[in-house]
Amino acid sequence: MQLPIYLDHAATTPVLPEVAEAMMPFLVQTYANPSAAHALGIEARHAVEEARGIVAEAIHAYPDEIVFTSGGTESDNAAIYGVAYALENRGRHILSSPIEHHAVLEPLQYLAQRGWEIEMLPVSSEGLVAPEEVARRIRNDTVLVSVMHANNEIGTVQPIEAIGAICREKGVLFHTDAVQSFGYLPIDVRKMNIDLLSLTAHKFYGPKGIGVLYVRSGIPFEPYQKGGGQENGRRGGTLNVPGIVGLGKAVTMVMEQREGESARLQRLRDHFIAAVEQAIPEATLTGHRQYRLPNNVHFCFKGIEGESLLLSLDAEGICASAGAACSAGSHEPSHVLQAIGVPPDRLRGALRLSLGRATTEEALEYCLHVLQKAVGALRQKQRVQT
Amino acid sequence: MQLPIYLDHAATTPVLPEVAEAMMPFLVQTYANPSAAHALGIEARHAVEEARGIVAEAIHAYPDEIVFTSGGTESDNAAIYGVAYALENRGRHILSSPIEHHAVLEPLQYLAQRGWEIEMLPVSSEGLVAPEEVARRIRNDTVLVSVMHANNEIGTVQPIEAIGAICREKGVLFHTDAVQSFGYLPIDVRKMNIDLLSLTAHKFYGPKGIGVLYVRSGIPFEPYQKGGGQENGRRGGTLNVPGIVGLGKAVTMVMEQREGESARLQRLRDHFIAAVEQAIPEATLTGHRQYRLPNNVHFCFKGIEGESLLLSLDAEGICASAGAACSAGSHEPSHVLQAIGVPPDRLRGALRLSLGRATTEEALEYCLHVLQKAVGALRQKQRVQT
Repeated sequence: MQLPIYLDHAATTPVLPEVAEAMMPFLVQTYANPSAAHALGIEARHAVEEARGIVAEAIHAYPDEIVFTSGGTESDNAAIYGVAYALENRGRHILSSPIEHHAVLEPLQYLAQRGWEIEMLPVSSEGLVAPEEVARRIRNDTVLVSVMHANNEIGTVQPIEAIGAICREKGVLFHTDAVQSFGYLPIDVRKMNIDLLSLTAHKFYGPKGIGVLYVRSGIPFEPYQKGGGQENGRRGGTLNVPGIVGLGKAVTMVMEQREGESARLQRLRDHFIAAVEQAIPEATLTGHRQYRLPNNVHFCFKGIEGESLLLSLDAEGICASAGAACSAGSHEPSHVLQAIGVPPDRLRGALRLSLGRATTEEALEYCLHVLQKAVGALRQKQRVQT
Repeated sequence: MQLPIYLDHAATTPVLPEVAEAMMPFLVQTYANPSAAHALGIEARHAVEEARGIVAEAIHAYPDEIVFTSGGTESDNAAIYGVAYALENRGRHILSSPIEHHAVLEPLQYLAQRGWEIEMLPVSSEGLVAPEEVARRIRNDTVLVSVMHANNEIGTVQPIEAIGAICREKGVLFHTDAVQSFGYLPIDVRKMNIDLLSLTAHKFYGPKGIGVLYVRSGIPFEPYQKGGGQENGRRGGTLNVPGIVGLGKAVTMVMEQREGESARLQRLRDHFIAAVEQAIPEATLTGHRQYRLPNNVHFCFKGIEGESLLLSLDAEGICASAGAACSAGSHEPSHVLQAIGVPPDRLRGALRLSLGRATTEEALEYCLHVLQKAVGALRQKQRVQT
């Protein structure tokens, strides 16, 4: 078994060799600007349109509904601002959940400072949003509902099909951040009544710096990044051809392997969760046991500092996380754990282990062993100090 | 001589093999999220900070003034909105030029719809902005001046040091879009009194999808892309590590080779311009003869359709452009040519040839031959038809 063991796939994934290989010709050889009218430009444009078709098919959209962005954060920002500004004269009420990614919450906070009313849906202790709460809260001036498909920290999967149906029925646009879910769960924007959806390639073995915003045909949308008129006027900026080709290849591989790989990960996940619960006292599984990303394990350990636990694991060659990677280093307890009501004595003892392609049963056995030892040692130290 | 001959370096450049090679390990091996606290994350973070230092040194900035973005369009959008929203209570008057890139003009137009007053500086027939016009127009409520370093169509280089000095003296922030110039001209943000500056790697043999916004330390700045708190809270989103490493390598190579390569290109440029003027009647050089990007050739041919000329060149294996790549396919005459007052009979006969590393004297001789033939044939056809 080779160290380090990477259990931080929710933060990012390696680029698959096949994906890197697909990208290479578009760095050095077919490098032209796909907006250029000459032969080299047309060659690059064909590669872009092929990738667009692959992405569209994977989520049951039309190719012209796919806008390439620089990643999940841009896609989320563009979705929120894009609808809010396009519909500001119709209404300024937006529904969302308190456990969204910061890429959704921060634009919403910004809009709140500028006169929008942002209403947060209640979430259960397992991180679930109830569709009937969405129905109950939609008003005449509601212009957007934004609820993520799967949570990046605790892995809870939302009933987005039911939420989408309610939004469609009430004539309100529905955005979902599917950044964490696409690599593991099927998505059908038609069946799920999704109007805007965010993806990013680096969460499913594609490159960093490239993402997708699906924008349903015909919906009001004010472009976020402006200049140049690319993407049918919906996103300015030179198209990142190698990134787009890499994204396309990564999507192709997701579609070929997702079902089998998700089933494998889910088995590993459930076995590991059961083993932790048996081996380590006062460890609470966070999130929903059933409606959960196949690769997500998240525990809160009573009386433990998550940061110290991470250091102990890191010292033994295990790469894990206390929650969102982007917030690592911040000493605030996670907004997600606060929103679902994790008790104070466990709020700082969070550990997220996110499995992936390279994760084996053997690696998880080693991880369990290290984790048990580390939690024991930290609790022992705590007792000595107090 | 190998065809096609690529003379569209202002649209984009190939990634140098050295740059692609530097990026590869960060795709497949050192793939972790640089915000992660574990060993793999720290390794990725070191690579990011090394690149940040390289960029800072190249423009005489401090590393913490460098914000990585997804490219020039994002940098321009972030600079304009970032200052406008941060200072909206101080004033809403912005000065810019009518020949800026759409990535500057479109955010300005959007602000104009929302109550800002956008005033356009006059430009000479050679595309120059006069610093004294900036001085004359700065008011008490002016919050930003945005004038590009070098124009992407006609190659005119602005007196940004003089403009910067005026802005600093009057206490107004100064942004310059240096997307086209950095690969060819020295930039010193301290000496030039620049507060915000936009760069993008793919214009100087780095990858697409990665850029820089230099934000002078301490200036008011409202983050454009929000969520996650990366880049000291100035730009949310997972850092594009391979892109950043590629950008750093490309900057290193620019700094090593810029002086010699710019001198070589300038010689080729001047020789080619003289040859066109001698060989083809009624061809007007657009832009300034002296204050001009070393790699830019731009002519307007009387009585010619630029689109047809491009097709003729393309058929003979020459990749050129009528102007900005992003606007290719649009049938509107260029806003730059209109702003500098190109007469109507030449407005649609624009041709931009932008030279680069692979451009040889031999290639330009072939190009001159093809161009002369093509212009002659198109004019002949025109005469027959009318």
